[in-house]
Amino acid sequence: MERLLRRWRSFSGPLLSRCPPSQPPLCRAYHHPPGRVKRLALSRFFQPQNLREDQVVGLESRVSELTCKSHRLMLQTGLIHPAGPGCYHYLPFTVRAMEKLIRMIDQEMQAIGGQKLDMPSLCSAKLWRATGRWQLMGKELFQLQDRHNKEYCLGPTHEEAITSLMASQKTLSYRQLPHLLYQVTRKFRDEPRPRFGLLRGREFYMKDMYTFDCSAEAAHQTYDLVCDAYGRLFDRLGLRFVRVQAAVGSIGGTMSHEFHLPLNIGEDTLTACSNCGFTANVETLDPKQPNCPVCQGKLAETKGVEVGHTFYLGTKYSSVFNTEFINAQGKPSLVEMGCYGLGVTRILAAAIEVLSTEECIRWPRLLAPYQVCLIPPKKGSKEEMAIEPMETLYDNIAEALPQLQGEILLDDRTHLTIGNRLKDAKKLGYPFVVIAGKRALEQPCHFEVWCQNTEEVVFLPKQGLLDLLRKVQGH
Amino acid sequence: MERLLRRWRSFSGPLLSRCPPSQPPLCRAYHHPPGRVKRLALSRFFQPQNLREDQVVGLESRVSELTCKSHRLMLQTGLIHPAGPGCYHYLPFTVRAMEKLIRMIDQEMQAIGGQKLDMPSLCSAKLWRATGRWQLMGKELFQLQDRHNKEYCLGPTHEEAITSLMASQKTLSYRQLPHLLYQVTRKFRDEPRPRFGLLRGREFYMKDMYTFDCSAEAAHQTYDLVCDAYGRLFDRLGLRFVRVQAAVGSIGGTMSHEFHLPLNIGEDTLTACSNCGFTANVETLDPKQPNCPVCQGKLAETKGVEVGHTFYLGTKYSSVFNTEFINAQGKPSLVEMGCYGLGVTRILAAAIEVLSTEECIRWPRLLAPYQVCLIPPKKGSKEEMAIEPMETLYDNIAEALPQLQGEILLDDRTHLTIGNRLKDAKKLGYPFVVIAGKRALEQPCHFEVWCQNTEEVVFLPKQGLLDLLRKVQGH
Repeated sequence: MERLLRRWRSFSGPLLSRCPPSQPPLCRAYHHPPGRVKRLALSRFFQPQNLREDQVVGLESRVSELTCKSHRLMLQTGLIHPAGPGCYHYLPFTVRAMEKLIRMIDQEMQAIGGQKLDMPSLCSAKLWRATGRWQLMGKELFQLQDRHNKEYCLGPTHEEAITSLMASQKTLSYRQLPHLLYQVTRKFRDEPRPRFGLLRGREFYMKDMYTFDCSAEAAHQTYDLVCDAYGRLFDRLGLRFVRVQAAVGSIGGTMSHEFHLPLNIGEDTLTACSNCGFTANVETLDPKQPNCPVCQGKLAETKGVEVGHTFYLGTKYSSVFNTEFINAQGKPSLVEMGCYGLGVTRILAAAIEVLSTEECIRWPRLLAPYQVCLIPPKKGSKEEMAIEPMETLYDNIAEALPQLQGEILLDDRTHLTIGNRLKDAKKLGYPFVVIAGKRALEQPCHFEVWCQNTEEVVFLPKQGLLDLLRKVQGH
Repeated sequence: MERLLRRWRSFSGPLLSRCPPSQPPLCRAYHHPPGRVKRLALSRFFQPQNLREDQVVGLESRVSELTCKSHRLMLQTGLIHPAGPGCYHYLPFTVRAMEKLIRMIDQEMQAIGGQKLDMPSLCSAKLWRATGRWQLMGKELFQLQDRHNKEYCLGPTHEEAITSLMASQKTLSYRQLPHLLYQVTRKFRDEPRPRFGLLRGREFYMKDMYTFDCSAEAAHQTYDLVCDAYGRLFDRLGLRFVRVQAAVGSIGGTMSHEFHLPLNIGEDTLTACSNCGFTANVETLDPKQPNCPVCQGKLAETKGVEVGHTFYLGTKYSSVFNTEFINAQGKPSLVEMGCYGLGVTRILAAAIEVLSTEECIRWPRLLAPYQVCLIPPKKGSKEEMAIEPMETLYDNIAEALPQLQGEILLDDRTHLTIGNRLKDAKKLGYPFVVIAGKRALEQPCHFEVWCQNTEEVVFLPKQGLLDLLRKVQGH
């Protein structure tokens, strides 16, 4: 057997080389010359673009679904493509932005002791019946049966799964608590009215954290810890948020807060007291009492898109699954829980909704799929001679600034004018667009730099450009 | 409105601070003192361990399912926990290993021009009926209906989805091809006999790539390119693999290869000719012909676990969805496709199956969840004085070797003997285990270093240890 395997191993070389020897690809090369930085050329991207408004509308079955800016812009720029009601293909730019966001969420969750796991989407009906949520969630649950007629739902959230997982750890000691466990996975919810693109979908990515503590007091501290981490995340993203007292809904528990991005298209109405700082989702207030329940001050309303939700659960779930730890007195005791959601794909879309103009996407800088787009002149134009210096510039940036590795795009569609490509670049919202125009032929050569997040345009020589980009954090 | 928002923004500070001010946590601190490297302490991990064999058997409904080593070891060490037939919770160590594997796959796929996207799990029955696979796959498909009685399956693979997505790109030019699009997502397959843990599950992670070319010749070159990338991946992982001619099954097409790890528990029988190097899955051969179909040489058989599968599809799918590009003559023409799978969770389990002993997990070095485990002496032992130097060592390694950031664990369960903790460390298979034993009190202090992948044990002073670890690639 061993000999046979050795023989096979030695075959794998010849086997692979029996395929026809590598020839220059028939279309365009995707292998770069050795010893040079690999340039990311826009012409090779799968990035459907420049859809007209009427074409975009044609992608969705109902025009009414396109009433929101981020949805329209994300379709027009090929960030997403509809796959069915409330279901989208996330195209390559979106995947890059999402992976950056997930990395930031990982950092914040792990900074407070969070440990990442991954639970199945197929959730046994038995667990959901045990908490009564099979009935309670009703048609919002996607339900199915396997080949043995066993019933499942596609998890919209995982309180049942994780509480029963924790219950299986029979020797959990108070010394090990708190545990903060989280995942970033696809969730499913059969929304009656999916709309606004990624803002209200039926299949979406969510970060859900579940915490386990040895007392109500400790659980409240953990609750504050997670809320602070959420605040830090939105601060790093540069997104203004509001945290309001919220209803517990089908999740349950005794305390809950929502994190909202204030947006007119938001489906929640939020209220704030200018006197004492009280904030709430109006659904938590008595509609007959128009004033602040804390100080009787005047309340002002706005709309918000919910991007995060926190719940103090107490023993609601641990009592169902008998999820216990051994306390300092050596006695079993129910764990105190919290759960904490962040809508990953929803944060992406909401950020675009907040930051973009009607015509151009703007990203939180740390989430932009690519930080820099270089636009060389048009072939056949007077500035044509600057095409090659632009390619050299690409290599210079890549070599001088390793933190921008993989973050620089070359818009090599040189059959188009600079103007047309700049229009695309503005629409896609790269934080920095560098153009080799007339002044690229001056001595010293100057590049036109569009800093799209600050809306500045400057002309810089190569060194000045490198100094500017040195401050940019790629990923 | 703007004023209101500004007010709210200024409230978010006080709001958060209305929660009780931070006190020392009641249990154990999860915040590290400022200005010091954060130490990863094993005692704080959610890592169920040391399950006896009978307890492990109790986790699964049937003993017969536990006939494979990786399955048993992964349950015993708390890498996975069963959630239902063929469905597992991936616990934190597994998620770390999986994220490392996915990063390597991303590197290899992007090196050949692959672009990452992400398609929904909910796949419309309409698409699957168009190719006839709704019927063909039958009970292997998890099927469900939404609240409007629209039918879906949970995608086991995405040929239909991506071919119809590509068909929507009406102006695809031959200049843009090839496109190599891939995703790493959860897949679903209602296996009649899920078993062997992650080796044959019903919900699992898969990398699936789909390629689009402008001619059969170009598509064959792309096919070779992807196969070569697969070979490089397994080489980097240090996993011996066999590539064999394979049946096309329900995916279809005209050419197919499987990548196998040779393993006795494998469900496929592979055959190789010692004369000409021909290899095949026996299901592709005429059972009446015992000799090599190429040279009539003698064939030898072995078992293998399939970890990758490649298909040349031709126009099987593009002809159904009318997926065309504009060729050099300006005429629409059907794209030539290939599809390429890698079982992500299956590679993890198969690698553990190949490399581990009956009692101890061994990882491909690049996938080990943590590279280094430090074991300080037991509290109250003669070597107790070495506990603090070990914590200093942790900080020294972390500061001197930034590539090991997040890769070093401190086994702070100092109520246990070194021997007991070393047993755990061997079982979990950290590539490097560093022990502060008697010789840690010598001048100069020496640490006992277990290099588990090479089965060497050496005593090294601090500088020697740093030099050894400098060569280790963390992530």
